[in-house]
Amino acid sequence: MGLIVQKYGGTSVSNLDRIRNVANRVAKTYDSGHNIVVVLSAMAGVTDGLIEQANQLTETPDKRELDVLLATGEQMTAALLAITLESMRYPARSLLGHQAEILTNTTFGNARILNIGAGRIKALINQRHIVVVAGFQGCDDEGNITTLGRGGSDTSAVAISAAIQADACEIYTDVGGIYTADPNICSKARRIERICYEEMLEMASLGAKVLQIRSVEFAKKFNVPLHVRSSFNEEEGTMVVNEEDVMEKLVVSGVTCNKNEARITLRKVPDQPGIAAKVFSPIADAGIQIDMIIQNTRQGGQTDLTFTVPEKDFNQALQISNRIANEINATEVLGDSDIAKVSVIGVGMKNHSGVAAKMFSALAAENINIRLITTSEIRISCVITEKYAELAVRTLHDAFSLSNEKI
Amino acid sequence: MGLIVQKYGGTSVSNLDRIRNVANRVAKTYDSGHNIVVVLSAMAGVTDGLIEQANQLTETPDKRELDVLLATGEQMTAALLAITLESMRYPARSLLGHQAEILTNTTFGNARILNIGAGRIKALINQRHIVVVAGFQGCDDEGNITTLGRGGSDTSAVAISAAIQADACEIYTDVGGIYTADPNICSKARRIERICYEEMLEMASLGAKVLQIRSVEFAKKFNVPLHVRSSFNEEEGTMVVNEEDVMEKLVVSGVTCNKNEARITLRKVPDQPGIAAKVFSPIADAGIQIDMIIQNTRQGGQTDLTFTVPEKDFNQALQISNRIANEINATEVLGDSDIAKVSVIGVGMKNHSGVAAKMFSALAAENINIRLITTSEIRISCVITEKYAELAVRTLHDAFSLSNEKI
Repeated sequence: MGLIVQKYGGTSVSNLDRIRNVANRVAKTYDSGHNIVVVLSAMAGVTDGLIEQANQLTETPDKRELDVLLATGEQMTAALLAITLESMRYPARSLLGHQAEILTNTTFGNARILNIGAGRIKALINQRHIVVVAGFQGCDDEGNITTLGRGGSDTSAVAISAAIQADACEIYTDVGGIYTADPNICSKARRIERICYEEMLEMASLGAKVLQIRSVEFAKKFNVPLHVRSSFNEEEGTMVVNEEDVMEKLVVSGVTCNKNEARITLRKVPDQPGIAAKVFSPIADAGIQIDMIIQNTRQGGQTDLTFTVPEKDFNQALQISNRIANEINATEVLGDSDIAKVSVIGVGMKNHSGVAAKMFSALAAENINIRLITTSEIRISCVITEKYAELAVRTLHDAFSLSNEKI
Repeated sequence: MGLIVQKYGGTSVSNLDRIRNVANRVAKTYDSGHNIVVVLSAMAGVTDGLIEQANQLTETPDKRELDVLLATGEQMTAALLAITLESMRYPARSLLGHQAEILTNTTFGNARILNIGAGRIKALINQRHIVVVAGFQGCDDEGNITTLGRGGSDTSAVAISAAIQADACEIYTDVGGIYTADPNICSKARRIERICYEEMLEMASLGAKVLQIRSVEFAKKFNVPLHVRSSFNEEEGTMVVNEEDVMEKLVVSGVTCNKNEARITLRKVPDQPGIAAKVFSPIADAGIQIDMIIQNTRQGGQTDLTFTVPEKDFNQALQISNRIANEINATEVLGDSDIAKVSVIGVGMKNHSGVAAKMFSALAAENINIRLITTSEIRISCVITEKYAELAVRTLHDAFSLSNEKI
């Protein structure tokens, strides 16, 4: 008998039949004697539909009021699940963000959780109630409704797990867990049994869209073990845990791929202090997020400066870059949105040399030209021409023997 | 410069264009220097859609959770209007039931307002904010969401008007006010300029569906003058005020008609103490609301007992009546759903005799047979055969010269 938090994503509650399915899963957990808190997303598509309505009224909807609008999505699913559970004679009680005392800052649309007053949730649990919390939402200290950003229900679930010291936090999604590569690209991709928070963070930020990054940070900070699994079957998924709790530390745990970036290079930039700030400040001011930055010293006091931006911001970033190039006397601006970034990730590579060499050789053997390289402590990323993306993922998956079953 | 509460019903906010229309009206009022609180219903059809979803899950949805679900409808329109006003550069702020401190009892689905802590509304008004309140909803003393029943937004608006001592409470609807008769039946029907609360209560309960009855009771209790008008044009509507404030007290103000009732008669009931209770208790226990009750003494210690019930409950009431008739030795049960109740209403008839006689003569002149009669201090109702309903309304409208323009 334990205290379990279960979070169900939008596809798991996308219609009344699926809500019934969730109710049956929750009831089963309750019947085994567990206490249970359920955290829900909005039905798939509902949040987008609400944003669309607001955008029909104005291109820049007021952020406070947009949050009031968006919060209705999770309010609906929470009420519908509680109604279903009650109709099955289970004592269920829905709580909205403010009722669950999820206190956030006032950054509407992307609020951070400051504190969770777990009193009401705990009181209901002690009466053996099933508590159904509307995910994605909280309130600030003035009682204004806030939302936590895309995928925020993951963070709601993790934060509540931390606040009530849950024994487990189960994240139900439409995929069965975290895979060594995207199964749609790499048919040999294998579900990972255990992965550590650090690896998961690199995976999440590199395009494995299963978990909101912030929820993983939160889980790491408060040491909440996550269990990512499917709501459509009974299979075990992936445990996301502390590095110490990963028994077998693989050198490489997974291969990811991101095709939504574009590259910009300023050629023959004067190699002087302050130049980088001159280049990147106007781009940041335009709200464009820069991912990789690469600079090699060249001869004659000049250097090439290369960086990547989201593909959607490519044209705007290119315009700004041309203006800057003029100001700082760079000779040329090159741009290319036809790129992909493939990465290998593994906490084990901290203690193993040769991972990079193996990666580069494997790509070379397929005649895939590496155009840019960056690394972190547990990740190596190469930018290649986009059309080779899938080939590169499969090649690296094989090279690091990721499809091998664990012993 | 005053403090105005404006309530817009579901048809006035049924799509984004109409919400823009409401925003323009609100902005105009604000620009004239008034302070303004807007109370909104859900978009037309939304509440029914949500109830339908809950009913697909179970025939008897949990009432607490149903209120959580239904409250999203008004939350959406409040947010959408605030977004529209903000996009027009007006300082708008939405408040949900609990944020507007609308404290109710815990009768989910049909809660009564106990108190409104007007502090937050007043504070926002003092900063020249336009306050947009989600109607129909409140919260109990534990912070649970409650709703006020069908048409509850009217009551929200009136209660807020009372709490903040508004100078006017304007109820915007898709009809232009209160009419001397249903304009769909009686082409000569005329909009009433001023009507008193008592008359409005009789009108509302007899089928003029413009205002929730409870909102009129509330307005009467707290002396809130209501202005019922259309959101689609600039015409003046109907003022609902204290009897003293109705200058010209017409003997008859309006004619109403209700075709949704059915009649049941128990014949030759023993005329003994306790018989009425024996008849009506089981019907009340079945949740059936009885409207008229008529009893005439007959000779031989026996009487006929006639009453009317809503048409939808007719069959069930008939079954119960047959059972009771057996128990109390009544000789016969007669039933008839083919009836209509036409009424003339007017606070002036308190001081005028001859209204009843004029009504009966007018109906007789058209060969309309009167089957039942009941009266209140300001109303006379006759039950007739349903097919004569429209004819009766037009006849009475003419008989009391209701189409005459006021001098």
